[in-house]
Amino acid sequence: MFVFSFKKGWNPDGKHCYVTGGSSGLGLALAKILVAKGAHVSIVARDQAKLDAALVEMEAARVSPSQKLQAKSADLLNATASTAALEAVCELHDGAAPDAVFTCAGSSKPMFFVEMTEQDMKDGMDYGYWVQAWTVWAVTKMLVKQKKRGAKICMVSSMLGLMSFAGYASYAPAKHALRGLADTLQSEFMLYDIESQIFFPPTIYSPGYVTENKTKPDVIKKIEGTDEGLTPEQAAQGMLKGFVRGDNHISADLLTDIFRAGTRGSAPRVNFVFEAIYDFISYVGVPIWRRSVDGAIRGHREEHDKYLHLRGFFG
Amino acid sequence: MFVFSFKKGWNPDGKHCYVTGGSSGLGLALAKILVAKGAHVSIVARDQAKLDAALVEMEAARVSPSQKLQAKSADLLNATASTAALEAVCELHDGAAPDAVFTCAGSSKPMFFVEMTEQDMKDGMDYGYWVQAWTVWAVTKMLVKQKKRGAKICMVSSMLGLMSFAGYASYAPAKHALRGLADTLQSEFMLYDIESQIFFPPTIYSPGYVTENKTKPDVIKKIEGTDEGLTPEQAAQGMLKGFVRGDNHISADLLTDIFRAGTRGSAPRVNFVFEAIYDFISYVGVPIWRRSVDGAIRGHREEHDKYLHLRGFFG
Repeated sequence: MFVFSFKKGWNPDGKHCYVTGGSSGLGLALAKILVAKGAHVSIVARDQAKLDAALVEMEAARVSPSQKLQAKSADLLNATASTAALEAVCELHDGAAPDAVFTCAGSSKPMFFVEMTEQDMKDGMDYGYWVQAWTVWAVTKMLVKQKKRGAKICMVSSMLGLMSFAGYASYAPAKHALRGLADTLQSEFMLYDIESQIFFPPTIYSPGYVTENKTKPDVIKKIEGTDEGLTPEQAAQGMLKGFVRGDNHISADLLTDIFRAGTRGSAPRVNFVFEAIYDFISYVGVPIWRRSVDGAIRGHREEHDKYLHLRGFFG
Repeated sequence: MFVFSFKKGWNPDGKHCYVTGGSSGLGLALAKILVAKGAHVSIVARDQAKLDAALVEMEAARVSPSQKLQAKSADLLNATASTAALEAVCELHDGAAPDAVFTCAGSSKPMFFVEMTEQDMKDGMDYGYWVQAWTVWAVTKMLVKQKKRGAKICMVSSMLGLMSFAGYASYAPAKHALRGLADTLQSEFMLYDIESQIFFPPTIYSPGYVTENKTKPDVIKKIEGTDEGLTPEQAAQGMLKGFVRGDNHISADLLTDIFRAGTRGSAPRVNFVFEAIYDFISYVGVPIWRRSVDGAIRGHREEHDKYLHLRGFFG
């Protein structure tokens, strides 16, 4: 097939890969694949017990005794902690910056906007954006200071970084922000021969998904009923495929492919031919999809009003 | 001409319009137009001297003695202050929520990512996102509590909320985040009969533009050389035109029209026919535009390396 894009390959073997949010879900699935492909893998997350269990799984995937595998506990919500975590995992590599960074940390708490407290709003940005942005910020400084060429940084946004609907007023802004950061850096990193990539997963059936469903309003669950979702393993495979191929915007399922094509901004094309087709599908299909979503929300008005009364919103 | 969209009109006459960032640039230009069309206009900004001068200009545009015009000083960077500012301007209207809200507050500080401090990154989100988001958050709670129907909220993003390039790693994420918030609310507000709209201006030749050019790296100025820009008056006219027409995504110049069409996500269409044409232009044209931008950045590598050495970046 004739393809307009010319992409470089990338091989994890012998590379130091830094995976944040690596103790569960997408991050853990990705870490295990990278280990199985011969990479040195460092994971960071908050919960030490989960990290210990994750390291056992990573050890089981080991293919060479020389692979350096480590799991460290860190909170990544600010610049200082993210820099410290990065420096800690680089110690085992004599302080050399990682070859590849995958910022998989993050969580979401869907709820109605009018019920969000100041803290809910801040948490949305902290756990959707800063938890990844500070690591990208710290790693970039390290890479440029060390004049390391050819490194790759991949953030994890969401399908909700390309579009949005009711329920995600604290999460979608953060995931859109990540996309803005990735697109800026894709351009700016040409100064340093670093690659900025970003993955837009659909629903991932992970521990985080179970948590987010606890607060998710029923009307949102109804809208999402059509979203098929991926297992963490499927998402990690798809993410790595696009990462290796050098896609700047990575998607791993047809629905996100379609939204990505219709929301491409200034990002380099993944495939000039397929994207034209997806763009056409999105041009015609999204308004139809929207109509059903809008209908579900409008149909929920009366029930929502009762709900707000019951919750004491009107005082 | 045959148009697929069916938009409602909107008349500022007699409406209470709340304009943040109303003491200069886009906000002031918009406030004056709204006054001239018979609206009650409340502006909020930080600098009392600028507010006083702005109020004089607004008074000069007054068309009726019954119009309520006011200018109040407030910092909009947190939830409490934004709620207080909103409540303060509503006092003159017996506590009734505004009919229309235009969040024009914000600023940008373009610079290289590797030179950004923790504070630069935080400021980017504060002055690009939160300075508007907290007002939207406060106004929405007020509108829903008062069960006010038909109100309209318009945020101000940027062309850099639809795409990005080098220099805007603190600003583009914030402007993308606003777009994520507006798109979420466009869907969620169907529960309350409120309208969420968002304006994507190109360069506006405002006092803010003069300030941002002080830190802007030369290579960015070179890339932006092709961007024509609008005066605050032109931008305000274009914004209001889209606002009145009910466009959810508002753009006021051809270049942004083109980027908007290629970055539409799940937003309702402004015009099904024109957008197909713009989308095609963006599909073919953006990669060509990118090539020149990428070339400018790659050509700047050596000079940038010298610059970082001179700045002592490598220690």
